[in-house]
Amino acid sequence: MSQANVTRGATADRNDALPYDVDVLRLGHRLVRDARMSTHVGLVARALGARSLIISGADDETVDSLRRVAERWGGNFEVAFTKSWRETIKKHAGIVVHLTMYGERLDDCLKRIRENLQLPEDSSKRKRVLIVIGAEKVPSEIFQIADYNVAVGSQPHSEIAALAVFLDRLFMGEELYYRFDKAKIRIVPKAKGKHVEVL
Amino acid sequence: MSQANVTRGATADRNDALPYDVDVLRLGHRLVRDARMSTHVGLVARALGARSLIISGADDETVDSLRRVAERWGGNFEVAFTKSWRETIKKHAGIVVHLTMYGERLDDCLKRIRENLQLPEDSSKRKRVLIVIGAEKVPSEIFQIADYNVAVGSQPHSEIAALAVFLDRLFMGEELYYRFDKAKIRIVPKAKGKHVEVL
Repeated sequence: MSQANVTRGATADRNDALPYDVDVLRLGHRLVRDARMSTHVGLVARALGARSLIISGADDETVDSLRRVAERWGGNFEVAFTKSWRETIKKHAGIVVHLTMYGERLDDCLKRIRENLQLPEDSSKRKRVLIVIGAEKVPSEIFQIADYNVAVGSQPHSEIAALAVFLDRLFMGEELYYRFDKAKIRIVPKAKGKHVEVL
Repeated sequence: MSQANVTRGATADRNDALPYDVDVLRLGHRLVRDARMSTHVGLVARALGARSLIISGADDETVDSLRRVAERWGGNFEVAFTKSWRETIKKHAGIVVHLTMYGERLDDCLKRIRENLQLPEDSSKRKRVLIVIGAEKVPSEIFQIADYNVAVGSQPHSEIAALAVFLDRLFMGEELYYRFDKAKIRIVPKAKGKHVEVL
């Protein structure tokens, strides 16, 4: 999988990337019922700095709509399917973060995750994070396999929201400042109304 | 509408509240199609410190499921309908924040919103914020009525994610530390597995 091609807004053409390679694994996707939710999961992953979404379960609608967005709005975000989430997790050479309301407090975990991700200054290797998010039921095995079970609050809410807050915290807000290359369309921030640039 | 009854986790019975009264107005809710998305919007609003959700459009399924959660998990989160979002916005005595990918950058806006919300030290009045989030199409009038059009990134993603990141930034992460009173059930954060307290 390629690196996220997001370039810092202010310096247009640089091929800067965010400090970690983040992939998102979506468990328990159910056909039709979850199409829209999984599409949102994918859009959030892409917009907030992850480089791919891997869906456990198959659904062409979700994939098509995410690919259309990526083509129009730029970047190299990828969408894939897996028949075995176990295999996907096992093969992943990085930290596995499971977002769950039953987990440890976000701030506590983030501190440890950040320490874990700290690289020696001279290292050119990028650290990888696999974020696992479930649908309503998650196999209990996941809690054991994950390096971190992280709760973005211990109240029931939304895996979309949990993913968004986690990415925003992990990247410390930097993810909002990068811009995607190869975009056909781009928004210029504006106080009132809409300013869309066709590239 | 009552104040959010969220008490800081560490000091159990205090009736502390977050610094602002935040309500969320959900525009363009379409029956059935949007039930799950609006339910997630409501859950995120509640879990991340807002005190109510107002839905423009009517859907009993969404309301019922949000009320069931609030009853089980505690707090005073309210769900209401409006037939006229114009009226709801007009009647709201506070700052109107419209979350839109076309708006100004989050960091820039937040700075100004925070200044705007700053109260004189001796004031006992609480400042109010109405967060407006749309479905796919938002009437252009909203851009004019809103005090702030705020972009949580200028890439297409999810109103659920935008709401979550905005609330987390507005409350500076504090919202995750409060706990809801009158709860029948509560989660105790845990590294592996689930620890549910029945109260």
